[in-house]
Amino acid sequence: MRNSKMNHAPMGWNSYDYYDTTVNEANVKANADFMAENLKQFGWEYIIVDIEWYSKDAGTMRKNYQYIPFGDIEMDEYGRLQPDPARFPSSSGGKGFGPLAEYVHSLGLKFGIHIMRGIPREAAHRHLPVKGCGESANEIADPSSICGWNPDMYGVRKSVCGAQEYYDSIIGMYADWGVDFIKCDDICNTNLYRENQYSAAHEVEMLAKAIEKTGRDIVLSLSPGPALIEKAWHYEKYANMWRVTDDFWDEWDLLKAMFYRCELWQNHVAEGSYPDCDMLPLGRIGKGFDEGRYTRFTKEEQKTMVTLWCMFGSPLMVGAELTQLDEWTRSLLMKEDILKMVSNDYTGRQVERDEKHAVWSSFNKQTGERHAAYFNLQDEEQTICLDWNQIKQFPIEDNQPVTELWENKDYEADGSVLSVKVAPHGVKLFVCK
Amino acid sequence: MRNSKMNHAPMGWNSYDYYDTTVNEANVKANADFMAENLKQFGWEYIIVDIEWYSKDAGTMRKNYQYIPFGDIEMDEYGRLQPDPARFPSSSGGKGFGPLAEYVHSLGLKFGIHIMRGIPREAAHRHLPVKGCGESANEIADPSSICGWNPDMYGVRKSVCGAQEYYDSIIGMYADWGVDFIKCDDICNTNLYRENQYSAAHEVEMLAKAIEKTGRDIVLSLSPGPALIEKAWHYEKYANMWRVTDDFWDEWDLLKAMFYRCELWQNHVAEGSYPDCDMLPLGRIGKGFDEGRYTRFTKEEQKTMVTLWCMFGSPLMVGAELTQLDEWTRSLLMKEDILKMVSNDYTGRQVERDEKHAVWSSFNKQTGERHAAYFNLQDEEQTICLDWNQIKQFPIEDNQPVTELWENKDYEADGSVLSVKVAPHGVKLFVCK
Amino acid sequence: MRNSKMNHAPMGWNSYDYYDTTVNEANVKANADFMAENLKQFGWEYIIVDIEWYSKDAGTMRKNYQYIPFGDIEMDEYGRLQPDPARFPSSSGGKGFGPLAEYVHSLGLKFGIHIMRGIPREAAHRHLPVKGCGESANEIADPSSICGWNPDMYGVRKSVCGAQEYYDSIIGMYADWGVDFIKCDDICNTNLYRENQYSAAHEVEMLAKAIEKTGRDIVLSLSPGPALIEKAWHYEKYANMWRVTDDFWDEWDLLKAMFYRCELWQNHVAEGSYPDCDMLPLGRIGKGFDEGRYTRFTKEEQKTMVTLWCMFGSPLMVGAELTQLDEWTRSLLMKEDILKMVSNDYTGRQVERDEKHAVWSSFNKQTGERHAAYFNLQDEEQTICLDWNQIKQFPIEDNQPVTELWENKDYEADGSVLSVKVAPHGVKLFVCK
Amino acid sequence: MRNSKMNHAPMGWNSYDYYDTTVNEANVKANADFMAENLKQFGWEYIIVDIEWYSKDAGTMRKNYQYIPFGDIEMDEYGRLQPDPARFPSSSGGKGFGPLAEYVHSLGLKFGIHIMRGIPREAAHRHLPVKGCGESANEIADPSSICGWNPDMYGVRKSVCGAQEYYDSIIGMYADWGVDFIKCDDICNTNLYRENQYSAAHEVEMLAKAIEKTGRDIVLSLSPGPALIEKAWHYEKYANMWRVTDDFWDEWDLLKAMFYRCELWQNHVAEGSYPDCDMLPLGRIGKGFDEGRYTRFTKEEQKTMVTLWCMFGSPLMVGAELTQLDEWTRSLLMKEDILKMVSNDYTGRQVERDEKHAVWSSFNKQTGERHAAYFNLQDEEQTICLDWNQIKQFPIEDNQPVTELWENKDYEADGSVLSVKVAPHGVKLFVCK
Repeated sequence: MRNSKMNHAPMGWNSYDYYDTTVNEANVKANADFMAENLKQFGWEYIIVDIEWYSKDAGTMRKNYQYIPFGDIEMDEYGRLQPDPARFPSSSGGKGFGPLAEYVHSLGLKFGIHIMRGIPREAAHRHLPVKGCGESANEIADPSSICGWNPDMYGVRKSVCGAQEYYDSIIGMYADWGVDFIKCDDICNTNLYRENQYSAAHEVEMLAKAIEKTGRDIVLSLSPGPALIEKAWHYEKYANMWRVTDDFWDEWDLLKAMFYRCELWQNHVAEGSYPDCDMLPLGRIGKGFDEGRYTRFTKEEQKTMVTLWCMFGSPLMVGAELTQLDEWTRSLLMKEDILKMVSNDYTGRQVERDEKHAVWSSFNKQTGERHAAYFNLQDEEQTICLDWNQIKQFPIEDNQPVTELWENKDYEADGSVLSVKVAPHGVKLFVCK
Repeated sequence: MRNSKMNHAPMGWNSYDYYDTTVNEANVKANADFMAENLKQFGWEYIIVDIEWYSKDAGTMRKNYQYIPFGDIEMDEYGRLQPDPARFPSSSGGKGFGPLAEYVHSLGLKFGIHIMRGIPREAAHRHLPVKGCGESANEIADPSSICGWNPDMYGVRKSVCGAQEYYDSIIGMYADWGVDFIKCDDICNTNLYRENQYSAAHEVEMLAKAIEKTGRDIVLSLSPGPALIEKAWHYEKYANMWRVTDDFWDEWDLLKAMFYRCELWQNHVAEGSYPDCDMLPLGRIGKGFDEGRYTRFTKEEQKTMVTLWCMFGSPLMVGAELTQLDEWTRSLLMKEDILKMVSNDYTGRQVERDEKHAVWSSFNKQTGERHAAYFNLQDEEQTICLDWNQIKQFPIEDNQPVTELWENKDYEADGSVLSVKVAPHGVKLFVCK
Repeated sequence: MRNSKMNHAPMGWNSYDYYDTTVNEANVKANADFMAENLKQFGWEYIIVDIEWYSKDAGTMRKNYQYIPFGDIEMDEYGRLQPDPARFPSSSGGKGFGPLAEYVHSLGLKFGIHIMRGIPREAAHRHLPVKGCGESANEIADPSSICGWNPDMYGVRKSVCGAQEYYDSIIGMYADWGVDFIKCDDICNTNLYRENQYSAAHEVEMLAKAIEKTGRDIVLSLSPGPALIEKAWHYEKYANMWRVTDDFWDEWDLLKAMFYRCELWQNHVAEGSYPDCDMLPLGRIGKGFDEGRYTRFTKEEQKTMVTLWCMFGSPLMVGAELTQLDEWTRSLLMKEDILKMVSNDYTGRQVERDEKHAVWSSFNKQTGERHAAYFNLQDEEQTICLDWNQIKQFPIEDNQPVTELWENKDYEADGSVLSVKVAPHGVKLFVCK
Repeated sequence: MRNSKMNHAPMGWNSYDYYDTTVNEANVKANADFMAENLKQFGWEYIIVDIEWYSKDAGTMRKNYQYIPFGDIEMDEYGRLQPDPARFPSSSGGKGFGPLAEYVHSLGLKFGIHIMRGIPREAAHRHLPVKGCGESANEIADPSSICGWNPDMYGVRKSVCGAQEYYDSIIGMYADWGVDFIKCDDICNTNLYRENQYSAAHEVEMLAKAIEKTGRDIVLSLSPGPALIEKAWHYEKYANMWRVTDDFWDEWDLLKAMFYRCELWQNHVAEGSYPDCDMLPLGRIGKGFDEGRYTRFTKEEQKTMVTLWCMFGSPLMVGAELTQLDEWTRSLLMKEDILKMVSNDYTGRQVERDEKHAVWSSFNKQTGERHAAYFNLQDEEQTICLDWNQIKQFPIEDNQPVTELWENKDYEADGSVLSVKVAPHGVKLFVCK
C-alpha cells in the first residue's frame, strides 16, 4: 500500500530543530535556496515545514507552553487547518502551501509538511462539517483520543462514516498543494496510552489509503518514537519511515542509546522502509526554544552520529539552519563516500556491541564493497580490535589494507585482525579496497 | 483535613444503578419519600443524584453513547454546571439543587450529588471566567488531563492561579445548595493514565480544602476504583470513602472478586475512613441502560454480598429503585442485626480465604460481641469447618452455642470447631451469644 | 554464524506430543521406518527425540510430576548427560545416540535431540570436572539461573573459564554421535525471569559457536516460546528456528492465537531463519501424559492449522505417533501442493485480520505463483470477501478463475472480488492458475 | 497469630553492616558486653547474628562471591543448619547457639539470628530425612523456588506432608537454643519472582505457626524489602517487622528515598507491627565487605535518619561495631528524648512532602506531647515554614514557644506559623512544651 519507489532513505532539511513552532515562509525559502545550491548534488532533496504552521500565536508564550492550549488557529470551513497567512503570506486567499511547494519544486527539491493526527478539537466543539460527506466533526472526533503533549487535535474514530472522508479531504488538499512528504505526529507511538501505544493504527491505515487515492508519490513518515518493534509489520506495510526514538537532541546519552535502537531495528531496513533515527542536530539549532546554540556534540560525536545513521540506513534530516552553516558542518553534509551507504544497495548490520564499544558492517550487494565501523562508546580513548573473518560478508585476505574514510588514511590488518585506537565517543570507518 | 464525625459508614440510595444518566426530580423525591418512611430507622439516610444531571440530551443516543460527546449542557457564566431545568424544574432560575436538597432535608435525610473532577471542556474552549479571580477556564484547564470514559471535563492544573478558586466556586455553590455528600468521579483511579493512576491527587486536595472552607459537614467520596493501595494514606488523609473496585454489578465473578478486595483493604476501615465496595445492585435496576431487570444475584448471593459489605465496613448504597422494592429486598434492607456491623464499634477481619471459601470475623470493641461468617465461594454446596480458637478475638468456650443470623437458628460447636454446610455462593453468619 | 544452507523450513517428527518423557529406542525406530517409507518423498526428514532421554525414572511419578525433582539420571564423568541405557539399549557402553543416529541416517533421514540449556545440577553439587579444561561444574554453573518448570539444570555463567569448553564438550559429543538437529529448551524465553526473559542469550551464542566449531551442519532450534520480538535480530543471527508460542496443543484458542503470532513474525521468515509455530498435534497424541487421545481438532481446524503453518513458513513437526496414522491424517501430510509453500521461494504475508477472519497471501518469487487463504475465525459459517487487487502481489485479471486446493474446486471472482463461504474455524485456500 | 506483647519497636545491634558473613563468637560477645554496659538503659536490647553463620568458607572468596555457590556448610543429619564450630566454638557438640544465647541473656539482653527461608539445597540433593516425619528433604524442597542472590536454599513447598514439620524442627531447635528474634531472609520480597514477589507467603505462615507452637516469645522479622504494600495485611497478621526497603546503606539517595517509603507505610505502625527501615549504618561499618569505613553520612544526615526512624516508629538496629564507637555516634544512641518516640504511645504522621522538604508530626496519645520535624531534602540550606494549625493533633496557641531537641534550643512561632532555617540534608525537631 505504501510508496516504495525510493532508492535510498530520504535526505533533507527540517525546520524543527532550529525554529520550533515559529518557522515562516522566508526561512523556508532561504533554506531551500541553500540546499539547491550547495547540497542537492549529494542527495539532499526534502524541505520539511514542521509543527503548528497553522497557529497564529505559536511561540508567544514560550516560557509557559511549547503549544498554547485553546490558542488561535487558521482553519477552513471544513475543519481543515491552513497555514497562518501572517507567517506564510503566499498562502493567503486559500492557496495553502501551494505556492511555497511550487517554489521548492522550482529548485529541483521536494516539499514536505508536518501534521498532527486527527481533527482539530475546535472543529469538533464547533460541530463543523466534514468535506465530502454528511457527517460533522463532532461525529468523527474521539473525545478520548488526545495527544499527551500537544493540545490541538482529537483522534479520528475507527470505522465511522466520515472518518476516511476527513482524511481524504486533508490529504487530497495536500496533494493539490504539491506536498511530497507528510510527517504525521502523535501516531507512531501514542504514548499517552501506555497499554495501547499504537492506538491510532487505524489512522495510519486511513492516511495510507488517502495517499494512495491521490495517485501522488508522497512519503509517509510517522512520529514520534520510540516505534514499537511488535508493530514493525504494520509500519512496513503502510508507511515509509517511523521514528525509532523519542526526540533526538545533541546529548551523548541519546546518541549512545541509539546504538541499542539500531541493533533492535537493523533487520527492518528495506526499499521504501526506513526506521528513522530522527533529525541530525548539527550546526546552529534551538533558536525557537530559547536563544539558540551551536550543537553540543563534539566533532567525534558528530562523526559517530553520521556514520551510524548512514550504515544503519536511517533517513537523514538536517536540523541546522542551513544559511548559518560553518565549514565543518557543511563538510559533513558533503561526505559522499559515507552518505552513499543509505542507499538500498547497502546492507548494514551490527557485528557486536557492549557498554564500551560497537562494531557495524555494511555490505554493497551490487558491488561487493565492504565497510566496517569501530565505535568507542567510552569517555576515554580505547583500542578496539576485531577479527574480520567474524563478519559474514567481510572475510578479507590476510593483511589486506583498508582505508579509513574520515581521515582518509590506510590501515593494515594483522592477519585478519585489525586493532585500532579510537577517540572518546569517536569512530573509525574502514572500507575494503 | 477530612470530615471524620461519622459513627458508621454512610448508608443511602444512589440513582445510577436504575436510572443511569436520566434521573429526574420526581424520581429523586419518590425514592427519598420511600426511604424516609420505610428505611430511615435502620440507618439509611443519603439520597444521591448520580452522573450528568447537567446534561440536556443525556440518554438520547444510548445505543451509541452512554455520555454524548460535545453534547448540550447547562452551565452558568462561570463555567459551573447546573442541573438541567427540564429534568429538575425546581432548579430553574439559578437555584440549582437548593430546593431539592431542602426537600430531602425536610424528610430527615441527607442530600448528595455526583460530580466529574475538573472543569467543563466547553468552558475552556469558550475561555469563560473563573468566579472569584482574574483567571479564565482556558488557563486552569489541563488539555492533557481528560477522563477516559466521559467526555465532559478537563482536569484542573496543579499550582496555578485560579485553580483553588474554581474548586472553591463550585464547592461553595454546592454548600449553598445544602449538599451533604459529594461523589467525585474520575479521581480515585484516573485509569486512562496507566503510569500515574492517581494523576489528580492535587484535585483531591483542592476538593478537601474547598470543603473545609465551607464549614459544612460534607462527605467526600472518590470514584471510580479500584483505589490504589499505595495511596491509602492519601485517601485516608483527605477523603471519607474511596472505591476499592471498578463498577460493581450483579455478576458472581465481581462479587467473588470483592473478597480479594476486602482482604486487601481490611486494615483501612476507621472512623470517617471507609473503603467502598460500591452500590448494592439489588431489586429493580438497569432501566437507564436498557429495559431494566431484576437483579441477577440469587438470594444466597445477595446474603453473601450484604454480609461481606457489613462485616468489612463498606458504605452501603442501594441501587434498586426503592418504589418498586419487593418484599425480599425490602427485608434485606431492614436486617438490623446485620447492618449494625458497619458501625465504627465493629472491627472486621478476614480469618482465611482461598479459591473455595472465605471466613470473616467481626468484633465489637465496646460490647465484646463476636461474629463469624462462613462464605462458600464454590458453585456447589460445601461443608466449611473452623476452629474458633484460631480467631484471635473469638475464643469461645467449648461447645458454646451460637446463632446463625440469616435463618435465626442455633448451632453448637464440637469443642471449639464448628462445621457447617453452606449453599453455593452462600453464607452462614454466626453470632456468639 | 548460524547454518543457513536450508531451502525450506525443517519438516519432521517429534516424540513429545505422544510420548512426553518416555520415548524409547524402539519407538524412535518405528517412527523413522514409517517416515522413510511413506513421508520422506513429501519433504519430511527429521526424527527428533524430545525431553529427558537421560532420565532413569522419567514418567514414574506422572501424577505428581512431569519432571521428577532430584531424580535419577545417566551422566558421564564430565557431567554430560547420556541416554538412559534401559530405554536406549544401543547407547550402552558409552556410545550415546551414535548407533540410533546411524540407523536413522541409513533410512535417508536426519536425527535430532532435545536438550535443556545448562549443566546438570547434580554435576555442580558434585563438583564434577568439565572436559577439556581445568574448571569444574560448580565453577561454571550459575546457582541463580534455573528453569522454572524443569529441575534438571543450572544455567552456565557468562564469560567464565570453562563455560565455552563445557558447551564444546557436549556439542562435540553430539556431532560425534551424528546429531543433525538440536532443540535447546529453556533458552528462547527463560520465562522465570520476567524482567530478563532472554537471560541466556550468552548460552545461545556459546551453542552457535560450539556448533560452528564442529564443522557439522546442525540445525539449532530454540524453545520455548513465545520468542521475544525485540530479540528477533539475535535469534536470526545465531539460530535457525525459535518458538513463537508457548507449547501448542489441540485447542482452538491456541490455534486462533497463532494468527496473532504469525502476524507479528511474518516479516522474519528467510533462508535458514524460521519462526516456529510448534508441533502439529495431529492423529494419536498424549499417551505419555495420560491415556492418550485422538487430536481434538476438527478436520476444518486441521486444515486451518496446516494452511497457516505452510503459508507463514513455519517448521513442520508432526506430533502424532506415525505408526498409528489414520487415512485422513496421512493425507494431510502428503498434501504436496500445500506443503511446498514452506519453501524459501514463497513469501507469505497477512493481508488482513480481525477477530472474525484472516486472509493470507503467498507469492512465489521464482514462478509468480500466487495463493490466498481465507480463514474463518468464528464459530459459525461466514462469507469472507476480498478484493484481490488489495494484495500487492496478487493483482488478477477480472473474473480470473482460481482453484481451491483443499477441495480441488474452481471458483471465479466477480471482477477482482471473490466472496466465499467458509466453514467454522475453517479455510479456503486459492491458487491462481 | 504473631507476638504482639511489645511496647516499642525492637532496638538492638546486628552483625551484618560491619561483619558481612564473617562474624564470630568473640565479636558477638564483645558487642553484647558493650551494649549491656552502655546502651541497655536507653532501650537497646537485641543482639542479632546475621547471615551464613553455618558456612565454613564464608568470606574466603569475597572478591568473586559474597555467598559461595556449592560451598561448605555445617548441617545436622536432618538437614538443619548449625553454627560453624570453628567460628562459634561454644556450639560444638551439637549445642548450636544455646551457649551463646545463654551468655547474652546473662547480660540482660536478648539474642537473635538470621535465617534464609527454606531447606538447604544440599539436603535436598542428598535426600536427607526431615525430623519428626517420614518425608525427606527432596520431597519438600521446591526446585523452582530459589533465592535470587544467595545459593544456599530451596524454598519449602506449600501444603505437602513434611513441610510444617521441617519448620517446626528448626524453629523448635532455635527455641531450645533460647533464640528471641528471628530475621528470616528472602521471604518479605522474593524478588527473583517479579510477578509473584510474595511467593513464599505460605512459608511466613508456617514460620508463624511453628513459633506459636514453641510457646516462646520470638520476634519474627522479614527481609528483604521493599515489602509489598498490597501484602500489608498479611505481614501484619503473621509477623512483627518487615523491611520497607532493599538493603539500606550510608548513601543520601537511599536516605532521601526513605521519606517516600515512610509516607507509604505510615498508617501501618502499631503494637507488635513495625514496618522496618533497616539497620542504621553508623560509626565503623563495612569491614566484612572490604577494608571497612566510617559511615559516609554527615552528622546532619545522621540526625535526619535517626529522627525519621524514630518518628515513623521503625525498629532501630545499629550496624556499627559497638566496641569502636566514637563519642558522636555513642551520643546519638543515647538521645533518650528522641529514641522514646518509637514507643507505641506515639503516632507519627507525615504532614507534607515534596522533592525539597518533608514535615512529620508525632503525637503521644497518653501524654498529649507533640513533636514536629522539619527535614531539608535539598543540598543547600533552606527555610522551611509551617502553619502548625495544619497538623490535626498539633494545634498550638499563638506564639507558643517550642524546643528544638537536637540543639536543645527554644524557638517561637509567629502566630501559629514557624519558619526555620535547616541545614542541607538536615532536620529541626521541635517539641511543644
